[in-house]
Amino acid sequence: MATVPSVSNSITVRLEVPARGNAVSAITTAVESSGGSVTGLDVTASGLEALRIDVTVAAASVAHGEEIVEKLRTIDGVSIGKVSDRTFLMHLGGKIEMSSKLPIRNRDDLSMIYTPGVARVCMAIAENPEDARRLTIKRNSVAVVTDGSAVLGLGNIGPEAALPVMEGKAALFKRFAGIDAWPICLDTQDTDEIVAIVKAIAPGFAGINLEDISAPRCFEIEARLREALDIPVFHDDQHGTAIVVLAALTNALKVVGKRIGDIRVVMSGAGAAGTAILKLLMAAGVEHATVADVHGVVHLGRGDLNENLRWIAEHTNRSGRTGSLKEAVAGADVFIGVSAPNVLDGDDLATMAEDSIVFALANPDPEVDPAIARQTAAVVATGRSDFPNQINNVLVFPGVFRGLLDAQSRTVNTEMMIAAARALATTVADDELNANYIIPSVFHKDVAKTVASAVREAALAGAQEDRAPARPTPGIVGTLDTAAFPTVKL
Amino acid sequence: MATVPSVSNSITVRLEVPARGNAVSAITTAVESSGGSVTGLDVTASGLEALRIDVTVAAASVAHGEEIVEKLRTIDGVSIGKVSDRTFLMHLGGKIEMSSKLPIRNRDDLSMIYTPGVARVCMAIAENPEDARRLTIKRNSVAVVTDGSAVLGLGNIGPEAALPVMEGKAALFKRFAGIDAWPICLDTQDTDEIVAIVKAIAPGFAGINLEDISAPRCFEIEARLREALDIPVFHDDQHGTAIVVLAALTNALKVVGKRIGDIRVVMSGAGAAGTAILKLLMAAGVEHATVADVHGVVHLGRGDLNENLRWIAEHTNRSGRTGSLKEAVAGADVFIGVSAPNVLDGDDLATMAEDSIVFALANPDPEVDPAIARQTAAVVATGRSDFPNQINNVLVFPGVFRGLLDAQSRTVNTEMMIAAARALATTVADDELNANYIIPSVFHKDVAKTVASAVREAALAGAQEDRAPARPTPGIVGTLDTAAFPTVKL
Repeated sequence: MATVPSVSNSITVRLEVPARGNAVSAITTAVESSGGSVTGLDVTASGLEALRIDVTVAAASVAHGEEIVEKLRTIDGVSIGKVSDRTFLMHLGGKIEMSSKLPIRNRDDLSMIYTPGVARVCMAIAENPEDARRLTIKRNSVAVVTDGSAVLGLGNIGPEAALPVMEGKAALFKRFAGIDAWPICLDTQDTDEIVAIVKAIAPGFAGINLEDISAPRCFEIEARLREALDIPVFHDDQHGTAIVVLAALTNALKVVGKRIGDIRVVMSGAGAAGTAILKLLMAAGVEHATVADVHGVVHLGRGDLNENLRWIAEHTNRSGRTGSLKEAVAGADVFIGVSAPNVLDGDDLATMAEDSIVFALANPDPEVDPAIARQTAAVVATGRSDFPNQINNVLVFPGVFRGLLDAQSRTVNTEMMIAAARALATTVADDELNANYIIPSVFHKDVAKTVASAVREAALAGAQEDRAPARPTPGIVGTLDTAAFPTVKL
Repeated sequence: MATVPSVSNSITVRLEVPARGNAVSAITTAVESSGGSVTGLDVTASGLEALRIDVTVAAASVAHGEEIVEKLRTIDGVSIGKVSDRTFLMHLGGKIEMSSKLPIRNRDDLSMIYTPGVARVCMAIAENPEDARRLTIKRNSVAVVTDGSAVLGLGNIGPEAALPVMEGKAALFKRFAGIDAWPICLDTQDTDEIVAIVKAIAPGFAGINLEDISAPRCFEIEARLREALDIPVFHDDQHGTAIVVLAALTNALKVVGKRIGDIRVVMSGAGAAGTAILKLLMAAGVEHATVADVHGVVHLGRGDLNENLRWIAEHTNRSGRTGSLKEAVAGADVFIGVSAPNVLDGDDLATMAEDSIVFALANPDPEVDPAIARQTAAVVATGRSDFPNQINNVLVFPGVFRGLLDAQSRTVNTEMMIAAARALATTVADDELNANYIIPSVFHKDVAKTVASAVREAALAGAQEDRAPARPTPGIVGTLDTAAFPTVKL
């Protein structure tokens, strides 16, 4: 696929040019003739002899950016100064911070926020630890926990290198759902240790978002933490993706007029995301699924089945297929790829059933070129932001956690995830729905609140017995006037 | 000691009174006749027949607040509504939050803050993990870690109940030193587990502030973490207190004209703070120290010496004293108490040397009533905010960590702590120094930056070989113009 200039690869070049009439146009021409795109141009100093200009250029890659700088260097009389990568500049010093909600102006403020006043609040929580959800940050805090073992598509790059992603995740939690998330990047990849650590840090958080932990360890870590903790534990790579896929599939099936119980689904990829998608689709009504991994279709006769693949073999592929992915897609209604680039081509897709649906989610290069897929498939979605129908977890995790936190839920379960997917699907109205719009933009204003509301209701409905009993907030008594206290945002 | 109305015990009472001329004065009279103090009064609704008033009252205790409400209830025609404890109201929902430093307005922002752009930043850090200090929040982040085992004077109240203190600490880190601290409250009190957990979470932080962990575990935890980690580990209850005491003692000795090498110091308390104070004072030049605990003076002949007490016995009490604290203070120049209320009286202090110095730091009730101490001692300090010369860790920990972070220090050592104490002492100018002003207010504007600067210099001077080599920031090349990049705060 051709790569186009992107803001995520943009650079800012500070240069000085002679103060001639055509200086600026020479810059623009140099950039555009190298295939770059000028997105900003500021004259930052002007003299009789020279102009100092900061020009911001979208490039297609780091190497392309370097080519553009070399082209700028050929302008007559130019001096090239500092070249700054805009993405790196945005990351300098980190993307998030801790803020105090209250001013600390004087000794009175200090005596309430800290000692001696804080002691009374501590004692109230010591008497009833559930009050930590009222009187501390716990009620709105989520730990974003990773061991850096499977970061984006970059692999096992370790906890420090994972931190920019976790900060970004925290920023998205706040932007889309008002949640206070903090990154916890772990310097261990031992399952037992990770479980022990997350259990130990849980008191300060109302939810745990596991992130970028490699399979199969992620399954055991999540399962053991869910068992151990009284706050929801959600591995976003698994369930966030699964929820968006279910929402997109729900709408895609509306477009082609098929029912979820009738379709034959073929999946490529049996890792964390693939397995979670499979399980959620089955819970939502998919009856006929077949999964292939790098060794071909998963079936009970294969000699290489680990615990996860065995579960898949036992619960899918009812007709006992063997062979390759390419063979399996023949006649299928839906292909879902969460695996590797270019495992299918146009000829393979042409063997699928009429009105086929193709979700090719490998990133940045999908399982099949979406331009080719669109020639035969009725609906195509990818993980990329430069094609329609982007399957993006950002659509889901902020709203899911908002709902869980609002319900003070102690768990997250399949019913809540299905509720989240259905709610997300409804944000595309019937009169908006078409093959190129089965899933909304992450900036669609209703997404997070719609998902949150559905998850909250599912959590409240499904777990009545599991919730803390309602009781008055310590330090606030009396009921004559139940309006929100006027000087405090509750 | 008499307890006076305090804002940290203040309540806000919403009440309705008949719309008569003397309604407001009846309220004020009721409060003042009960010994309370009106600090705010708002008419929040006014009608022909009634006024709704929110009156804020400083009380001496929770019980006193209740008495005041009962007195208000006797006003003719009054209805008492919601009674809110101001301190609890301030804590509702927590005192801190996570904020994004960057706006996320559109897909372009998203593509740089998150995928795909963030991947290049991750790869730069994977190639050189030290770049996490440039390109992530790590450079400015401190974990405030507790196990809830020794919270304030409240004892072992557990991790949830400790959270309000840790949030307050985080808020103070930001207020006084611009540091992003996040509370980590651990649901374990096992030394090995705490060490393993803090080691594991360290990649995302540039410093660890241990807080409210009980002795003797705190000694081993700190020592093992310092050995294991390449970021500074600082147990504030020990070293924060020790630094403020050394600063205060430095100035108190100036007031009385004694030299640190000549004085005889008697301490009450051999816990975490007491031991740290002892060690820092000895490192700073105190030659003659004697320590007493609840069983009397610590000496080598005692049969109950644990590792910590043995160290004290071996390094103090050169004259081999035995007996009680009361006996030990006779002839001493300095008494420092970090133990329990009222272990000494005026008669004991009268036996001290001329121009004695008394630091009675037990909180809220000191080792000796400071009003009585002032009758014989030349200089008196306490931990209380309602007496002069408050020994308060807030004077120290923000500046110490600011200095450590600015130096990108991998350690914190005694030299840096002595530098911090000396710097803090200098914030009281010679012409300001007197027996009632040996230590500045926590709101003194120079404190944090003066301490930070001294610690930074000590860290840079003492640990050259231990620091990361200077290298260019990834993503930013070129040197023609080295001015700070205009669109970015570096």
